[in-house]
Amino acid sequence: MTLPTPADVVASLPSGVQRLVVAFSGGLDSTVLLDLACASGRPVLACHVHHGLAAAADDWVTHCESVCQAAGVDLRVERVHVDAHKAGVQAGARAARYAALADSLQAGDALLTAHHAEDQAETVLLRLLRGTGVDGLGAMSPCQSFGVGSLIRPLLAYRRAELAAYAEARGLRWVDDPGNASLRYDRVRVRQHLLPTLESEWPGAVHALNALAHDARADREARGLLLAPRLEAALLEQDGPMRVSCLAAEPPVIQCLMLREWLRSGGIRPPGRRRLEASIAAFVRAAPDRAPEMSWPEGRVARFGDQLYRLPVGWPSVPDNEVVKGPEPRTWPGLGTLSWRPDAGQAGLVPTWLDAGVTARVMRPGDRLQIPGRPRRALKSLFREANMPPWWRLHLPILVDAADEPLAVPGIGVDARAAASGNAVALAPVWAPAERPDAPDWHYFQREP
Amino acid sequence: MTLPTPADVVASLPSGVQRLVVAFSGGLDSTVLLDLACASGRPVLACHVHHGLAAAADDWVTHCESVCQAAGVDLRVERVHVDAHKAGVQAGARAARYAALADSLQAGDALLTAHHAEDQAETVLLRLLRGTGVDGLGAMSPCQSFGVGSLIRPLLAYRRAELAAYAEARGLRWVDDPGNASLRYDRVRVRQHLLPTLESEWPGAVHALNALAHDARADREARGLLLAPRLEAALLEQDGPMRVSCLAAEPPVIQCLMLREWLRSGGIRPPGRRRLEASIAAFVRAAPDRAPEMSWPEGRVARFGDQLYRLPVGWPSVPDNEVVKGPEPRTWPGLGTLSWRPDAGQAGLVPTWLDAGVTARVMRPGDRLQIPGRPRRALKSLFREANMPPWWRLHLPILVDAADEPLAVPGIGVDARAAASGNAVALAPVWAPAERPDAPDWHYFQREP
Repeated sequence: MTLPTPADVVASLPSGVQRLVVAFSGGLDSTVLLDLACASGRPVLACHVHHGLAAAADDWVTHCESVCQAAGVDLRVERVHVDAHKAGVQAGARAARYAALADSLQAGDALLTAHHAEDQAETVLLRLLRGTGVDGLGAMSPCQSFGVGSLIRPLLAYRRAELAAYAEARGLRWVDDPGNASLRYDRVRVRQHLLPTLESEWPGAVHALNALAHDARADREARGLLLAPRLEAALLEQDGPMRVSCLAAEPPVIQCLMLREWLRSGGIRPPGRRRLEASIAAFVRAAPDRAPEMSWPEGRVARFGDQLYRLPVGWPSVPDNEVVKGPEPRTWPGLGTLSWRPDAGQAGLVPTWLDAGVTARVMRPGDRLQIPGRPRRALKSLFREANMPPWWRLHLPILVDAADEPLAVPGIGVDARAAASGNAVALAPVWAPAERPDAPDWHYFQREP
Repeated sequence: MTLPTPADVVASLPSGVQRLVVAFSGGLDSTVLLDLACASGRPVLACHVHHGLAAAADDWVTHCESVCQAAGVDLRVERVHVDAHKAGVQAGARAARYAALADSLQAGDALLTAHHAEDQAETVLLRLLRGTGVDGLGAMSPCQSFGVGSLIRPLLAYRRAELAAYAEARGLRWVDDPGNASLRYDRVRVRQHLLPTLESEWPGAVHALNALAHDARADREARGLLLAPRLEAALLEQDGPMRVSCLAAEPPVIQCLMLREWLRSGGIRPPGRRRLEASIAAFVRAAPDRAPEMSWPEGRVARFGDQLYRLPVGWPSVPDNEVVKGPEPRTWPGLGTLSWRPDAGQAGLVPTWLDAGVTARVMRPGDRLQIPGRPRRALKSLFREANMPPWWRLHLPILVDAADEPLAVPGIGVDARAAASGNAVALAPVWAPAERPDAPDWHYFQREP
């Protein structure tokens, strides 16, 4: 048995870290971590997240205050609201906890959590059972970027029994595992049933699972390095859309890796391999006039022309029948902003239309527009002509008159009956899509009339 | 539930396969496989391995004969001797079984085994618990080369219950799992305890473990493709020694992959990542006059000059004090052959030495040799001068006189007192190392005097 030392904490830190923010539940593990952090010589802030889920939560706060006072460490208590409806109370608690901890960080801070070898082994088993593939087996990283700082797990190499021995040797006080109250049910089963079974039959199991996690992370890092030149060649610009022609030139197993890396670099968790392989085959095979899509709970990808685009999940459609009056910009959250650019001539609307008010709505199948000097045509055809991907139709406001007939469409044009003539003053509609981290590709289709 | 069909067998075959050799134990799984193979329209040979380990083994043969006769299929019974002393009776039985099956194959035959989804899940769990790293999780391949043919597992996508349902629907007869008699103890524990526990708590576990195996194999294939150009640049020749300077230019995670691929391409199972990383660091850091080694149960690698060499495991040393009489070639199994090349002059031994007999032995620390016209020097120095790696010292016979003083060393030279003078007839020692599949690099040091 090897006991952890303050030097482990120091050795785990990336360069440039000043303050250590210790995620401190008051339980055994984080009490050991706080004690080590205090002995490391770096400035320390303890941060306790109060979920309000358990009746004893206030007692835990009192305990943490007493421990921190005795240690001469500042304690910050974050009270969070757990959104139990979204994805279960445990997932909600976890999300709220990490959001609160991220908020506690200043630039250059390192958040320290007390995860140990058993926690890591549990995570590997859970990932295994949930079918997250090889990359998921990387489990928790000992060092990753997090919010404006980093997230460090200095105790990942130690066993729970080693932390307990340290706590006893130092005479530490702790409360019994408040963190467990927010565990997911399947993690509880792994912790209380599966892992003990494994350990009793295969004494090296925890070690093997930890070594596997390390191996999986290293493999993933290596693969990222090996893939980088191919990905760079395949993307239109850094982190931009991916050229299908480049993808198609690779063998299927490489295609799969390229798409995964590209999704991950956009913060999107890739779908399972079978799904990914089938979708890539469809993307590669698709006729040039088709726009096949792949969508799964965490993401959405569509082909248009020679490119693949990552599209947002939960991207709102244009709301139906909202009145737009006057030339002030109008914003739909998560969707974008409609504004009016003074223009002269037929690309703009006669201002009186806006004085009276027009209606913005989502595009409908029968919509047609007669751009001045051209025949009346289906909006769908005009979209195609303007090289607008079809998914755009749901997310661009169509401005219609009282009879529900299109008057103007940003990026496409203005109907002849509403367009200004000659050099008369006019207002051209300009659409600025909302900035979304999951949709870095929108700017490829921002056009002005 | 989906039942297997003969089309699954056909779809699983690589192109060019003519005859199907079914590994037929007489148990449920292989009885299903044999039935499917017979219905596939391809020529079929059933092959039963008789381990002689269980009392009922002869009854199993009788059963297999009866089934094959009814199906009109030829049966070949291979009686194997299980070497229980080497690595346990189960491992011995497995090795003997596969050796016998490999012997049954003719060029272009496909050996079919009846492994199913639960077998694959068991294998993944075992690999996990034994700590074989991510690559080990690839478990059993549905299709691989084997002996002079291929090894195919057409039922890997099916569950055991699906095979049972097929057997019932077809009214098949089978004996209860003779194969289990040769299972390793830890596989029995996984099969009878761990996997059922997992399946009852996580109904998707078998599926998840199978998907993981597929993912790990695909990742490994992709990595092989991505690494290929780097490996090619780093090797002196195809499958030859690796240049340390090329290895040193890569980041550590890539170094690790390169070394692993290189070992695997030599049929050597790499050591664990931690061991590998430490050894690579030592190889890269080593001073030019050092020859650091890494050895583990399955392999041995040494640096010499700018190259890494794979060395054989269990490479015999030169036996001590064997008399070599006359000019006939002398072979030491696994080590090499000493022969004599007629020569004129000081590079050869006066033939009368061989008429009387000289002694061959392994090199000893104090050995010295005085090559004609040069000062007497330590053999160690002469080895270094000849650019012979130090590991060679154990595997090259030193020929000595009755007083145990070196007379001649192949590749180095002949002592002045035994060397022929002028144009007198002489015999020069020539050493030909044994051809070993695990030592493709020996030829770099085969020199003639």
